Amino acid sequence: MPSHMEHAMKMMMFTFHKFAGDKCYLTKENLRVLMEKEFPGFLENQKDPLAMNKIMKDLSQCRDGTVSFQNFLLLIAGLTNSCSDYFVVHMKQKGKK
Amino acid sequence: MPSHMEHAMKMMMFTFHKFAGDKCYLTKENLRVLMEKEFPGFLENQKDPLAMNKIMKDLSQCRDGTVSFQNFLLLIAGLTNSCSDYFVVHMKQKGKK
Repeated sequence: MPSHMEHAMKMMMFTFHKFAGDKCYLTKENLRVLMEKEFPGFLENQKDPLAMNKIMKDLSQCRDGTVSFQNFLLLIAGLTNSCSDYFVVHMKQKGKK
Repeated sequence: MPSHMEHAMKMMMFTFHKFAGDKCYLTKENLRVLMEKEFPGFLENQKDPLAMNKIMKDLSQCRDGTVSFQNFLLLIAGLTNSCSDYFVVHMKQKGKK
């Protein structure tokens, strides 16, 4: 049985390739669908309608408007890091109950 | 119910804080125990006995011998990226069966 971290790594690989299909990169449309399915609250709660364009621009600076697996991992690392403070507060509150 | 990616992100946060305890960083000993528990094959199969020292040195360049959550995420991104080619081949073989 895989460990928590092995499972998390497998999920990241599985998700990328599920939305990329046979390619080894995500197009802007692939990433939009991935974000909609995997982070349903993220796009809905974005006040900036151009948020996805900005993310794509940041991620695909070194490629022809596409996102590599490496850059996808950096996006996930960035999202996880930005959620971490909230997670710590939430876990501490849970621990106190 | 969280999506695959939300679950993966939660597992990374949970694992880091499980091994860091009340601190917001991992010591070398914390990271060694984390690697042993979460990636049991990794240290066993290392031919280089100084592998862990090298990882720590790379990760903690900007800090006092400790690993922040941000740097932990970069380690996981690096490990996941290095496993990805193997994963793709494995999934294709599985698909053919």
